[in-house]
Amino acid sequence: MIAATPAPPYYAVIFTSLRTEGDHGYGAMSDQMEALAQQQPGYLGMESAREAVGITVSYWASLEAIRAWKINADHLMAQAQGRSDWYSHYKTRIAKVERDYGFEAELY
Amino acid sequence: MIAATPAPPYYAVIFTSLRTEGDHGYGAMSDQMEALAQQQPGYLGMESAREAVGITVSYWASLEAIRAWKINADHLMAQAQGRSDWYSHYKTRIAKVERDYGFEAELY
Repeated sequence: MIAATPAPPYYAVIFTSLRTEGDHGYGAMSDQMEALAQQQPGYLGMESAREAVGITVSYWASLEAIRAWKINADHLMAQAQGRSDWYSHYKTRIAKVERDYGFEAELY
Repeated sequence: MIAATPAPPYYAVIFTSLRTEGDHGYGAMSDQMEALAQQQPGYLGMESAREAVGITVSYWASLEAIRAWKINADHLMAQAQGRSDWYSHYKTRIAKVERDYGFEAELY
């Protein structure tokens, strides 16, 4: 789903990755990390899709909220396993959302 | 592929969308718009994936570069067709990338 974020400014973490072959527990851990992120203070939403490349964008109220999520103990373990097992490459970008606008088709 | 962007700061346009049923010329236009974006001044790269939701993140050197791309004549036509034919919902977020870091597995 498209995340229902509040009015800007807020922050986005754009995580782009290439996976290794095979699951190696990735699917289960990915679901767990999404559930855990939702419980973090300052979490605003998440969007995710994977084809040749995987893109997960999570939205946060502040840089402090992002920092707290980055050093969450369970998340740190998942990050370490990501580097050893799941990802051949990734890039994380921390960005401040300054403006947004949307469109919804009139469905009648 | 993961976009090879320069050191921050730079800008990201996060475009998240839900498609209507059927192609309606979407695939061809999507390829055309990607090729056209690559020719725009200030274009830095693009990442894209679609599952339940589609996410396209394009990277730009400045807000001026984003604005020029937004009002490109061919792109304006594609945006209009997007609203009439291809998307049931979308959200566009303009964000300033303040920090990034990456990982590349040692493949030996």
